[in-house]
Amino acid sequence: MEKIDFMKNGVLRLPPGFRFHPTDEELVVQYLKRKIFACPLPASIIPEVDVCKSDPWDLPGDVAQERYFFSTREAKYPNGNRSNRATGSGYWKATGLDKQIATSRGNQIVGMKKTLVFYRGKPPHGSRTDWIMHEYRLVTAANAPQKKNLPR
Amino acid sequence: MEKIDFMKNGVLRLPPGFRFHPTDEELVVQYLKRKIFACPLPASIIPEVDVCKSDPWDLPGDVAQERYFFSTREAKYPNGNRSNRATGSGYWKATGLDKQIATSRGNQIVGMKKTLVFYRGKPPHGSRTDWIMHEYRLVTAANAPQKKNLPR
Repeated sequence: MEKIDFMKNGVLRLPPGFRFHPTDEELVVQYLKRKIFACPLPASIIPEVDVCKSDPWDLPGDVAQERYFFSTREAKYPNGNRSNRATGSGYWKATGLDKQIATSRGNQIVGMKKTLVFYRGKPPHGSRTDWIMHEYRLVTAANAPQKKNLPR
Repeated sequence: MEKIDFMKNGVLRLPPGFRFHPTDEELVVQYLKRKIFACPLPASIIPEVDVCKSDPWDLPGDVAQERYFFSTREAKYPNGNRSNRATGSGYWKATGLDKQIATSRGNQIVGMKKTLVFYRGKPPHGSRTDWIMHEYRLVTAANAPQKKNLPR
Protein backbone atom coordinates (compact mmCIF):
# COMPACT_ATOMS: atom_id res chain seq x y z
CA MET A 1 0.00 0.00 0.00
CA GLU A 2 1.45 3.31 -1.03
CA LYS A 3 2.00 6.18 1.31
CA ILE A 4 -0.70 8.80 0.92
CA ASP A 5 -0.74 12.31 2.31
CA PHE A 6 -4.21 12.88 3.75
CA MET A 7 -3.62 16.57 4.53
CA LYS A 8 -4.10 19.06 1.74
CA ASN A 9 -4.06 22.83 2.43
CA GLY A 10 -4.65 22.09 6.10
CA VAL A 11 -7.78 20.05 5.39
CA LEU A 12 -8.08 16.36 6.10
CA ARG A 13 -8.75 14.59 2.82
CA LEU A 14 -9.47 10.91 3.23
CA PRO A 15 -9.93 8.28 0.51
CA PRO A 16 -13.56 7.71 -0.58
CA GLY A 17 -15.59 5.81 2.00
CA PHE A 18 -13.64 7.06 5.02
CA ARG A 19 -15.41 9.54 7.27
CA PHE A 20 -15.80 10.80 10.80
CA HIS A 21 -18.28 8.32 12.23
CA PRO A 22 -17.42 8.10 15.93
CA THR A 23 -18.99 5.84 18.51
CA ASP A 24 -20.64 7.57 21.46
CA GLU A 25 -17.70 6.52 23.63
CA GLU A 26 -15.15 7.98 21.19
CA LEU A 27 -17.06 11.26 21.01
CA VAL A 28 -17.19 11.63 24.78
CA VAL A 29 -13.76 10.28 25.77
CA GLN A 30 -11.59 11.32 22.82
CA TYR A 31 -13.22 14.61 21.92
CA LEU A 32 -15.62 16.12 24.48
CA LYS A 33 -13.57 15.26 27.57
CA ARG A 34 -10.34 16.52 26.00
CA LYS A 35 -12.06 19.69 24.86
CA ILE A 36 -13.42 20.41 28.34
CA PHE A 37 -10.03 19.81 29.95
CA ALA A 38 -8.24 21.78 27.20
CA CYS A 39 -6.18 18.78 26.10
CA PRO A 40 -5.00 18.43 22.47
CA LEU A 41 -7.68 16.85 20.26
CA PRO A 42 -6.91 13.89 17.95
CA ALA A 43 -8.19 15.90 14.96
CA SER A 44 -9.62 19.38 14.37
CA ILE A 45 -12.83 18.02 12.95
CA ILE A 46 -15.46 19.49 15.32
CA PRO A 47 -16.00 23.26 15.12
CA GLU A 48 -17.18 25.41 18.03
CA VAL A 49 -20.65 26.62 17.18
CA ASP A 50 -23.48 28.01 19.27
CA VAL A 51 -26.07 25.54 17.98
CA CYS A 52 -28.96 27.77 19.09
CA LYS A 53 -27.66 30.87 17.28
CA SER A 54 -28.80 29.32 13.98
CA ASP A 55 -31.73 27.32 12.79
CA PRO A 56 -30.66 23.73 12.08
CA TRP A 57 -30.61 24.16 8.29
CA ASP A 58 -28.28 27.16 8.63
CA LEU A 59 -25.67 25.42 10.78
CA PRO A 60 -22.27 25.07 9.05
CA GLY A 61 -21.39 21.90 7.15
CA ASP A 62 -23.03 19.49 4.73
CA VAL A 63 -26.73 19.14 5.63
CA ALA A 64 -26.81 15.75 3.86
CA GLN A 65 -24.45 14.34 6.51
CA GLU A 66 -24.29 14.13 10.27
CA ARG A 67 -22.61 17.23 11.66
CA TYR A 68 -20.80 17.59 14.96
CA PHE A 69 -20.34 20.77 17.00
CA PHE A 70 -18.90 21.80 20.33
CA SER A 71 -21.40 24.07 22.03
CA THR A 72 -21.97 25.44 25.51
CA ARG A 73 -25.38 25.33 27.11
CA GLU A 74 -27.10 28.57 27.99
CA ALA A 75 -29.12 28.60 31.20
CA LYS A 76 -32.78 29.50 30.74
CA TYR A 77 -32.97 31.33 34.09
CA PRO A 78 -30.01 32.83 36.00
CA ASN A 79 -30.17 30.37 38.89
CA GLY A 80 -31.81 27.44 37.14
CA ASN A 81 -30.51 24.21 35.69
CA ARG A 82 -32.74 24.25 32.60
CA SER A 83 -31.26 25.06 29.22
CA ASN A 84 -32.52 27.59 26.74
CA ARG A 85 -32.64 26.01 23.31
CA ALA A 86 -34.64 28.55 21.32
CA THR A 87 -33.44 29.55 17.84
CA GLY A 88 -34.65 32.16 15.38
CA SER A 89 -37.47 30.07 13.92
CA GLY A 90 -38.21 27.57 16.65
CA TYR A 91 -36.78 25.55 19.52
CA TRP A 92 -35.16 22.24 20.41
CA LYS A 93 -37.19 20.01 22.70
CA ALA A 94 -35.92 16.91 24.47
CA THR A 95 -37.56 13.60 23.61
CA GLY A 96 -37.30 10.26 25.38
CA LEU A 97 -34.93 9.50 28.22
CA ASP A 98 -31.28 10.44 28.34
CA LYS A 99 -29.06 7.48 27.50
CA GLN A 100 -26.03 6.50 29.53
CA ILE A 101 -22.81 6.14 27.56
CA ALA A 102 -20.64 3.39 28.99
CA THR A 103 -17.11 2.35 28.06
CA SER A 104 -17.01 -0.59 25.64
CA ARG A 105 -16.07 -2.85 28.52
CA GLY A 106 -19.35 -1.67 30.01
CA ASN A 107 -18.15 -0.94 33.48
CA GLN A 108 -17.97 2.86 33.56
CA ILE A 109 -20.45 5.58 32.68
CA VAL A 110 -18.52 8.31 30.86
CA GLY A 111 -21.31 10.45 29.45
CA MET A 112 -24.98 11.06 28.82
CA LYS A 113 -26.76 11.52 25.50
CA LYS A 114 -29.95 13.56 25.18
CA THR A 115 -32.07 13.44 22.01
CA LEU A 116 -33.78 16.64 20.93
CA VAL A 117 -36.30 17.36 18.19
CA PHE A 118 -36.63 20.72 16.46
CA TYR A 119 -40.04 22.43 16.53
CA ARG A 120 -40.94 25.42 14.38
CA GLY A 121 -42.73 28.22 16.16
CA LYS A 122 -43.01 29.04 19.85
CA PRO A 123 -43.53 26.58 22.71
CA PRO A 124 -45.86 24.95 23.50
CA HIS A 125 -47.50 25.33 20.08
CA GLY A 126 -44.58 24.61 17.75
CA SER A 127 -44.83 22.04 15.00
CA ARG A 128 -42.51 19.07 15.05
CA THR A 129 -39.91 18.70 12.28
CA ASP A 130 -37.57 15.89 11.19
CA TRP A 131 -34.50 17.65 12.58
CA ILE A 132 -32.82 15.66 15.35
CA MET A 133 -29.92 16.65 17.60
CA HIS A 134 -28.05 14.51 20.09
CA GLU A 135 -26.54 16.39 22.98
CA TYR A 136 -23.59 14.67 24.65
CA ARG A 137 -22.40 15.71 28.06
CA LEU A 138 -19.49 14.49 30.10
CA VAL A 139 -20.03 12.52 33.28
CA THR A 140 -17.29 12.83 35.84
CA ALA A 141 -17.01 11.24 39.27
CA ALA A 142 -18.65 14.36 40.76
CA ASN A 143 -21.84 14.24 38.65
CA ALA A 144 -22.07 10.50 37.90
CA PRO A 145 -25.56 9.01 38.02
CA GLN A 146 -26.27 5.98 40.17
CA LYS A 147 -24.61 3.10 38.34
CA LYS A 148 -26.91 0.37 37.15
CA ASN A 149 -25.93 -3.24 37.63
CA LEU A 150 -24.98 -4.26 34.13
CA PRO A 151 -25.25 -7.92 33.12
CA ARG A 152 -21.92 -9.63 32.65
CA MET B 1 -4.15 21.81 12.25
CA GLU B 2 -0.89 19.92 12.37
CA LYS B 3 0.26 17.51 9.70
CA ILE B 4 -0.27 13.91 10.76
CA ASP B 5 1.08 10.79 9.12
CA PHE B 6 -1.78 8.29 8.96
CA MET B 7 0.34 5.40 7.64
CA LYS B 8 2.28 3.35 10.16
CA ASN B 9 4.07 0.15 9.09
CA GLY B 10 1.94 0.09 5.95
CA VAL B 11 -1.30 0.18 7.93
CA LEU B 12 -3.75 3.05 7.77
CA ARG B 13 -4.04 4.51 11.25
CA LEU B 14 -6.71 7.16 11.51
CA PRO B 15 -7.49 9.43 14.47
CA PRO B 16 -10.20 8.12 16.83
CA GLY B 17 -13.69 8.36 15.35
CA PHE B 18 -12.59 8.02 11.72
CA ARG B 19 -13.45 4.77 10.00
CA PHE B 20 -14.32 3.13 6.72
CA HIS B 21 -18.04 3.76 6.53
CA PRO B 22 -18.83 4.02 2.83
CA THR B 23 -22.16 4.84 1.24
CA ASP B 24 -23.56 2.20 -1.11
CA GLU B 25 -22.63 4.41 -4.05
CA GLU B 26 -19.02 4.79 -2.86
CA LEU B 27 -18.70 1.03 -2.36
CA VAL B 28 -19.95 0.27 -5.86
CA VAL B 29 -18.37 3.10 -7.83
CA GLN B 30 -15.09 3.68 -6.00
CA TYR B 31 -14.29 0.14 -4.93
CA LEU B 32 -16.27 -2.67 -6.63
CA LYS B 33 -16.24 -1.18 -10.13
CA ARG B 34 -12.52 -0.37 -9.96
CA LYS B 35 -11.78 -3.84 -8.64
CA ILE B 36 -13.69 -5.52 -11.45
CA PHE B 37 -11.98 -3.39 -14.09
CA ALA B 38 -8.58 -3.83 -12.39
CA CYS B 39 -8.17 -0.09 -11.77
CA PRO B 40 -6.15 1.16 -8.78
CA LEU B 41 -8.24 1.33 -5.61
CA PRO B 42 -8.39 4.47 -3.43
CA ALA B 43 -7.24 2.42 -0.40
CA SER B 44 -6.32 -1.20 0.28
CA ILE B 45 -9.00 -1.61 2.89
CA ILE B 46 -11.11 -4.48 1.46
CA PRO B 47 -9.47 -7.92 1.42
CA GLU B 48 -10.29 -10.66 -1.11
CA VAL B 49 -12.01 -13.43 0.81
CA ASP B 50 -14.21 -16.31 -0.29
CA VAL B 51 -17.05 -15.46 2.09
CA CYS B 52 -18.50 -18.97 1.86
CA LYS B 53 -15.24 -20.71 2.72
CA SER B 54 -15.74 -19.67 6.36
CA ASP B 55 -18.64 -19.41 8.73
CA PRO B 56 -19.42 -15.73 9.41
CA TRP B 57 -17.81 -15.70 12.86
CA ASP B 58 -14.55 -17.03 11.38
CA LEU B 59 -14.23 -14.40 8.65
CA PRO B 60 -11.17 -12.13 9.08
CA GLY B 61 -11.49 -8.81 10.88
CA ASP B 62 -13.16 -7.42 13.97
CA VAL B 63 -16.52 -9.15 14.48
CA ALA B 64 -17.71 -6.16 16.53
CA GLN B 65 -17.58 -3.98 13.40
CA GLU B 66 -18.92 -4.09 9.87
CA ARG B 67 -16.50 -5.97 7.64
CA TYR B 68 -16.08 -5.66 3.89
CA PHE B 69 -14.80 -8.30 1.48
CA PHE B 70 -14.32 -8.75 -2.24
CA SER B 71 -15.67 -12.16 -3.18
CA THR B 72 -16.65 -13.99 -6.35
CA ARG B 73 -19.93 -15.85 -6.61
CA GLU B 74 -19.85 -19.57 -7.16
CA ALA B 75 -22.56 -20.99 -9.43
CA LYS B 76 -24.74 -23.63 -7.81
CA TYR B 77 -25.14 -25.61 -11.03
CA PRO B 78 -22.73 -25.53 -14.00
CA ASN B 79 -25.16 -23.80 -16.35
CA GLY B 80 -27.35 -22.02 -13.84
CA ASN B 81 -27.52 -18.49 -12.59
CA ARG B 82 -28.13 -19.37 -8.93
CA SER B 83 -25.34 -18.93 -6.41
CA ASN B 84 -24.08 -21.48 -3.96
CA ARG B 85 -23.78 -19.85 -0.57
CA ALA B 86 -23.28 -22.86 1.73
CA THR B 87 -20.58 -22.69 4.41
CA GLY B 88 -19.26 -25.29 6.82
CA SER B 89 -22.00 -24.87 9.42
CA GLY B 90 -24.88 -23.42 7.43
CA TYR B 91 -25.86 -21.27 4.49
CA TRP B 92 -26.66 -17.70 3.43
CA LYS B 93 -30.22 -17.14 2.27
CA ALA B 94 -31.53 -14.03 0.51
CA THR B 95 -34.22 -12.01 2.25
CA GLY B 96 -36.42 -9.23 0.88
CA LEU B 97 -35.99 -7.64 -2.50
CA ASP B 98 -32.72 -6.52 -4.02
CA LYS B 99 -32.27 -2.78 -3.69
CA GLN B 100 -31.17 -0.56 -6.56
CA ILE B 101 -28.18 1.64 -5.84
CA ALA B 102 -28.45 4.96 -7.62
CA THR B 103 -25.94 7.79 -7.90
CA SER B 104 -26.55 10.56 -5.38
CA ARG B 105 -28.03 12.68 -8.14
CA GLY B 106 -30.51 9.81 -8.50
CA ASN B 107 -30.39 9.47 -12.23
CA GLN B 108 -28.30 6.35 -12.77
CA ILE B 109 -28.48 2.83 -11.35
CA VAL B 110 -24.90 1.73 -10.65
CA GLY B 111 -25.42 -1.40 -8.60
CA MET B 112 -27.71 -3.78 -6.76
CA LYS B 113 -27.67 -4.78 -3.10
CA LYS B 114 -28.94 -8.13 -1.90
CA THR B 115 -29.48 -8.82 1.80
CA LEU B 116 -28.73 -12.32 3.07
CA VAL B 117 -29.31 -13.98 6.43
CA PHE B 118 -27.19 -16.79 7.79
CA TYR B 119 -28.94 -20.03 8.76
CA ARG B 120 -27.30 -22.81 10.74
CA GLY B 121 -27.84 -26.32 9.43
CA LYS B 122 -28.96 -27.54 6.00
CA PRO B 123 -31.68 -26.01 3.80
CA PRO B 124 -34.61 -25.95 4.10
CA HIS B 125 -34.45 -26.77 7.80
CA GLY B 126 -31.74 -24.41 9.01
CA SER B 127 -32.29 -22.07 11.94
CA ARG B 128 -32.08 -18.36 11.36
CA THR B 129 -29.27 -16.40 13.04
CA ASP B 130 -28.56 -12.68 13.53
CA TRP B 131 -25.75 -12.69 10.95
CA ILE B 132 -26.51 -10.41 8.01
CA MET B 133 -24.55 -9.95 4.79
CA HIS B 134 -25.12 -7.40 2.04
CA GLU B 135 -24.01 -8.49 -1.40
CA TYR B 136 -23.24 -5.66 -3.80
CA ARG B 137 -23.01 -6.25 -7.49
CA LEU B 138 -22.13 -3.90 -10.29
CA VAL B 139 -24.73 -2.85 -12.82
CA THR B 140 -23.35 -1.95 -16.23
CA ALA B 141 -25.21 -0.82 -19.34
CA ALA B 142 -25.37 -4.47 -20.45
CA ASN B 143 -27.14 -5.81 -17.34
CA ALA B 144 -29.00 -2.70 -16.16
CA PRO B 145 -32.54 -3.26 -14.88
CA GLN B 146 -35.42 -1.27 -16.30
CA LYS B 147 -34.99 2.23 -14.93
CA LYS B 148 -37.78 3.50 -12.74
CA ASN B 149 -39.07 7.01 -13.17
CA LEU B 150 -37.65 8.77 -10.16
CA PRO B 151 -39.40 11.83 -8.76
CA ARG B 152 -37.51 15.06 -9.34
